[in-house]
Amino acid sequence: LNDDVFFDKSKKLVISVDTFVEGIHFVNFKNPDLVIKKIIRSSISDLICKGVNPKYYFISGSGNKKSFSKRNLNKISKSLDDEQKKYKIKLCGGDTTKSKILSFTIVSLGFANKIITRNNAKLHDDIYVTGNLGDSYMGLKVLQKKISLNNRMKNYFEKKYYLPNLQLNLANKLFNFANTSMDISDGLFDDMKKLINKQKLSFRLYLNQIPISKNLQNLILVKKLKKISFVSNGDDYQILFTASPSKLRIINKTAKSLGIRITKIGKICNHSTKSQIFDEKLKKIDPYHQGYYHRF
Amino acid sequence: LNDDVFFDKSKKLVISVDTFVEGIHFVNFKNPDLVIKKIIRSSISDLICKGVNPKYYFISGSGNKKSFSKRNLNKISKSLDDEQKKYKIKLCGGDTTKSKILSFTIVSLGFANKIITRNNAKLHDDIYVTGNLGDSYMGLKVLQKKISLNNRMKNYFEKKYYLPNLQLNLANKLFNFANTSMDISDGLFDDMKKLINKQKLSFRLYLNQIPISKNLQNLILVKKLKKISFVSNGDDYQILFTASPSKLRIINKTAKSLGIRITKIGKICNHSTKSQIFDEKLKKIDPYHQGYYHRF
Repeated sequence: LNDDVFFDKSKKLVISVDTFVEGIHFVNFKNPDLVIKKIIRSSISDLICKGVNPKYYFISGSGNKKSFSKRNLNKISKSLDDEQKKYKIKLCGGDTTKSKILSFTIVSLGFANKIITRNNAKLHDDIYVTGNLGDSYMGLKVLQKKISLNNRMKNYFEKKYYLPNLQLNLANKLFNFANTSMDISDGLFDDMKKLINKQKLSFRLYLNQIPISKNLQNLILVKKLKKISFVSNGDDYQILFTASPSKLRIINKTAKSLGIRITKIGKICNHSTKSQIFDEKLKKIDPYHQGYYHRF
Repeated sequence: LNDDVFFDKSKKLVISVDTFVEGIHFVNFKNPDLVIKKIIRSSISDLICKGVNPKYYFISGSGNKKSFSKRNLNKISKSLDDEQKKYKIKLCGGDTTKSKILSFTIVSLGFANKIITRNNAKLHDDIYVTGNLGDSYMGLKVLQKKISLNNRMKNYFEKKYYLPNLQLNLANKLFNFANTSMDISDGLFDDMKKLINKQKLSFRLYLNQIPISKNLQNLILVKKLKKISFVSNGDDYQILFTASPSKLRIINKTAKSLGIRITKIGKICNHSTKSQIFDEKLKKIDPYHQGYYHRF
């Protein structure tokens, strides 16, 4: 599989299959309602970022009796209902299996005549990202008790970790301008590399253009944190895409009409230069520098 | 989900999603090649028993480094190739995730205008089963070291446990005679109940008509075992279906032309009598009698 989804053009079928393990893909199961929402959104995000509306999903859980207690099953069921309404998707099957380790596999399906693939950027394309980056990673740090915040900020970032704001309304519009796209699940730099990993191209990203929330901006200032540590880590489920410079106007118009943020953060360059990230002073920085790049 | 598969009639799409956990759905991972074959067959069996040819599948594994060592990954890959050729299916996606407990989720897909559902038996239908039952359960007992056999018999039954003989060629023919069908994965009696659990009907099964292999027949005689213990346990992945008595001739003709065994083992009766199993002397027996019904 060279892309985030499988696409059968003749049957117009798009499928994504993902497994989520406790302690790896979600911190713990203390909030079953939030975990379920997070993993469903993570799964359908794979379709949305390709320009496809999700239609069906399946959920298969493995875990112990405590994880699937009646109380938890009720919470899970309520979350499924909520997400189905929010994203207009239908549950087509689900089961639970006994296991000592909690994990879920989610299958999401949609139908489409075409999708936006990876590895289809054009030289001199602009690079764009939707929404804000970094809030989810701050939420993870809070949940891991690696950073302590006041209650209002704690709630804000935890919510951003559990409830990514998917750009469902943008899905069908992407075809109007995007050459290539994917969602940010591993982190901006890793995913940017993946987006063009089979092309003889490179990218330049400008750190000061990468969009972050006011709350994250303030925290970074107050706590003297590094912006790059937050935007280079994943789980934001925003859409990363490239488009011809001629599409700037329609992109801005689309963002305005949908009431969402779409920000130009870099350029696609030729293969003779290495992919680079520039800081506020246009100095090259290494996102893999120890201390910037914490994966859990 | 009221059936073993999800069917979208308008999109002609049939899907099955199953999770298999080590120690529950397969004994252990000492033979990765065989385990992979078993779980793929178990997954596509859900489609075949509904009259649908499987076309695509996805496999998602969670486990530790040892389970997904280079050596094991090579064995897994070889098994996937083998099964793809044997059943004409195509792998559309697969990944591995870290977890302390080994499990796999398999998604199988096919395309069909119609499927044979559960809960569509007619009063006075005959009940049929394909192939032989019980060999797989004997294989499990051998693998669990609960029964010791000579090497030839050990190999025979272990192979039956790992490599169920799916009735792929029968899939499309089922529409010619079957009113309702499913595969036997939990055990003949449990699955027979499930097959008609929403209908106001009952069933009668005749133990002496239930087909078993010569090897199992001999072992039962020599070791003084109970036939019902073996046929009432699952994992045979044979097809259980009901058909009008008028279909007897076409069923026998189909079996002959495909070179497979299809055996009449009982009748669908009205709801006023309880579902029953009769032994060789037409005495009623209780398949749930302690000692007959061992689940692991």
